[in-house]
Amino acid sequence: METAVVKVGLIGAGTVGSSLAQLLLDANRVDMLIDAAGARLELVTVAVRDQSKPRAGIPSELLSDDAAFVAGHAPIDVLVEVMGGVEETRGLIEAALRRGVTVVTANKALMAAAGTELVQLAYANGADLYYEGAVAGGIPILRALRTSMAGERINRVMGIVNGTTNFILSKMTSEGSDYADVLAEAQALGYAEADPTADVEGFDAAAKVTILASLAFGTPLEGEVIFREGITKIRSIDVAYARHHGYVIKLLGIAERVGDHAISRRVHVAMLPEEHPLASVHGAFNAVFVEGAFSGPLMWMGQGAGGNPTAAAVLGDVVVAARNRVTGRCDAPLSVDETLQNYPMGELQTEFYLTVDVLDRPGVLALVTGVFGEHAVSIRSMEQSGFGDEARLTFITHLAFESDIAATIEDLEQLDVVDSVGACIRIVGEE
Amino acid sequence: METAVVKVGLIGAGTVGSSLAQLLLDANRVDMLIDAAGARLELVTVAVRDQSKPRAGIPSELLSDDAAFVAGHAPIDVLVEVMGGVEETRGLIEAALRRGVTVVTANKALMAAAGTELVQLAYANGADLYYEGAVAGGIPILRALRTSMAGERINRVMGIVNGTTNFILSKMTSEGSDYADVLAEAQALGYAEADPTADVEGFDAAAKVTILASLAFGTPLEGEVIFREGITKIRSIDVAYARHHGYVIKLLGIAERVGDHAISRRVHVAMLPEEHPLASVHGAFNAVFVEGAFSGPLMWMGQGAGGNPTAAAVLGDVVVAARNRVTGRCDAPLSVDETLQNYPMGELQTEFYLTVDVLDRPGVLALVTGVFGEHAVSIRSMEQSGFGDEARLTFITHLAFESDIAATIEDLEQLDVVDSVGACIRIVGEE
Repeated sequence: METAVVKVGLIGAGTVGSSLAQLLLDANRVDMLIDAAGARLELVTVAVRDQSKPRAGIPSELLSDDAAFVAGHAPIDVLVEVMGGVEETRGLIEAALRRGVTVVTANKALMAAAGTELVQLAYANGADLYYEGAVAGGIPILRALRTSMAGERINRVMGIVNGTTNFILSKMTSEGSDYADVLAEAQALGYAEADPTADVEGFDAAAKVTILASLAFGTPLEGEVIFREGITKIRSIDVAYARHHGYVIKLLGIAERVGDHAISRRVHVAMLPEEHPLASVHGAFNAVFVEGAFSGPLMWMGQGAGGNPTAAAVLGDVVVAARNRVTGRCDAPLSVDETLQNYPMGELQTEFYLTVDVLDRPGVLALVTGVFGEHAVSIRSMEQSGFGDEARLTFITHLAFESDIAATIEDLEQLDVVDSVGACIRIVGEE
Repeated sequence: METAVVKVGLIGAGTVGSSLAQLLLDANRVDMLIDAAGARLELVTVAVRDQSKPRAGIPSELLSDDAAFVAGHAPIDVLVEVMGGVEETRGLIEAALRRGVTVVTANKALMAAAGTELVQLAYANGADLYYEGAVAGGIPILRALRTSMAGERINRVMGIVNGTTNFILSKMTSEGSDYADVLAEAQALGYAEADPTADVEGFDAAAKVTILASLAFGTPLEGEVIFREGITKIRSIDVAYARHHGYVIKLLGIAERVGDHAISRRVHVAMLPEEHPLASVHGAFNAVFVEGAFSGPLMWMGQGAGGNPTAAAVLGDVVVAARNRVTGRCDAPLSVDETLQNYPMGELQTEFYLTVDVLDRPGVLALVTGVFGEHAVSIRSMEQSGFGDEARLTFITHLAFESDIAATIEDLEQLDVVDSVGACIRIVGEE
């Protein structure tokens, strides 16, 4: 039987694109890929911005500077998009899908902004749209959610889905360093961008949570901005206090059911019990923890970024896409559950860790704890430590409404005896 | 558009079977399953040994005592086999596959004994054969290996794939208890069988390694018995020594490439560095650690046994099988690589932990270390502790050939001054 051929066009030859080209062009892998994909995967064209720049390992005759032609007209079966960007890239992907070309992308920003429409467009044209590389680098979590887990009732997904912030928090934990110092080190090592906002303020994680939630719960990819809080306010003292009490501080992306018709999606720093599986995910590693009604807790862990791991995830998509091309079928998209509401953050109940710096005077403790009581926030434990003429009060609360905690902090900051509310960190994973 | 119907027949209504029936019959899950599977999953018959026994949640009109009829003649699209057993069960599965009925099974013993032939039989008849529930309970690792990871060059798979032994070793570690005491406790709790041989001697893990290796490397499922060593000789003193030196003792199933044309498959106790991701997998949890050339290290973790988690894995298979039924296709089996050799255990190089109890006399240490030297086994570290007129020597070696270690132990046991060689444990996961 003659081996089928699936022609692949690639847009973008940065770290991921060049790793993928290396995989597809490696003569030692040809037979393995034929066996995996049921077809010979032929890389026929690579669109780059600057065609004159030499690309190690990519023959110059494959290079093109015309991404629009590759997406819209080149004779390809699968388009791989790893150039990034949203508006221009969306047009390219739409052009490919409209002519029935399957698209594999690692573009989380685009998928979180326009994914549902793009998935529908793919299906309407008999093509697939896969985006495993968009979430958690080399970890094949998206395909698991859309295949093996598709019939399971998932109650919660929690992920360490940003390697930069996990690297920073891990260093702060292991070395007791301050945020600013570790950020500078991460920037010097290339683990953090010169402008780290997308990572440290949780935008990157929020896009990934949006994608995970869409596959776990059928929430739409477009639409409401999810709650987002970054790591910039975390101090070494909070990390040390957490450790002392058996917790580890992590930036988590969380999507969970609340009741039958609502999903809470959010990104924030959390104190996790150190025996929680996510607590031992260190450095630039990513992990996704899924709680299913029947499966129980499951965790996937792996490298969250980098050219090679992300290229491995993209290659997995290309292999599965090629199988579908050969058999002339495409996957039906998982449907969007229109009845699901976005659960209001203010109505969420969580345990909190709070520190309050106060003047060290008689009566202060009564004043401060009185404010907690006024807002029905019940205190589980409290510690006081003095420094100079000030004292630091450290509270862990019982379950409290977000809105009540916000009101408590606001009122505390009005008190003359309160210097500042230093930290407010949610405690997660104890139930 | 009318919703397609996929008829499911079930053989076996033990813990897994009854959990699965509950999932398929739950009115609240019908829409979710239609969305996931692209068809309504209709459980039409359940074959049990004793039809007169009431089965909670399964309407009596679905019950049958004729498994052969269900497999060979009942009007079904998918047969789910969770009755266990090998010879009789194989006949039932073959009967179903021969008439083009897709089979989902959780039967690791059968798959490890006859899997390759059964997979070929399925494909020849246009049916699928899925067995996610056979390895690591609720963890969807097999589908990941056959889809997302199929194009990746995997270098090593290491798994904690037996919950009973992991429960026992975890208890020995956390409580310092002896093997026999923890085994008795595990038996009382239902975590270990009255006859625990299949678990504690590594037979169960060996079947799972055989299955994992076949998907990761294309090794055949049938054939050579893999190297297997259980946990019965592990003493609390070994567990304590391991902890003291930063190691955790685990029973591991390992399959790895050695050179280009050989695979080593084995089950044995190992000392893992405590910072290795597998080291923090406690209790009855299972985990599979995969090292890919491009993906880097990946780990899957979850509940390794139990009716509900295994039923969740089986349901995932049924959902994917139903999608194929609806679109009239089946998966091509991954091919078997005939060129792969089974790497001889004796030629494997590993670091070892060894304890030798000796008479506490002058010259003994020179005698004992001389034996190591004669067999070219190089010592990395040594400790001596005395008790009465005896002493215990504890060695960690550099990389040594299995055959040289075996010869060293044999010669040590011939020495008059040696009372016994107490433990010989491989050290894994440091490279």
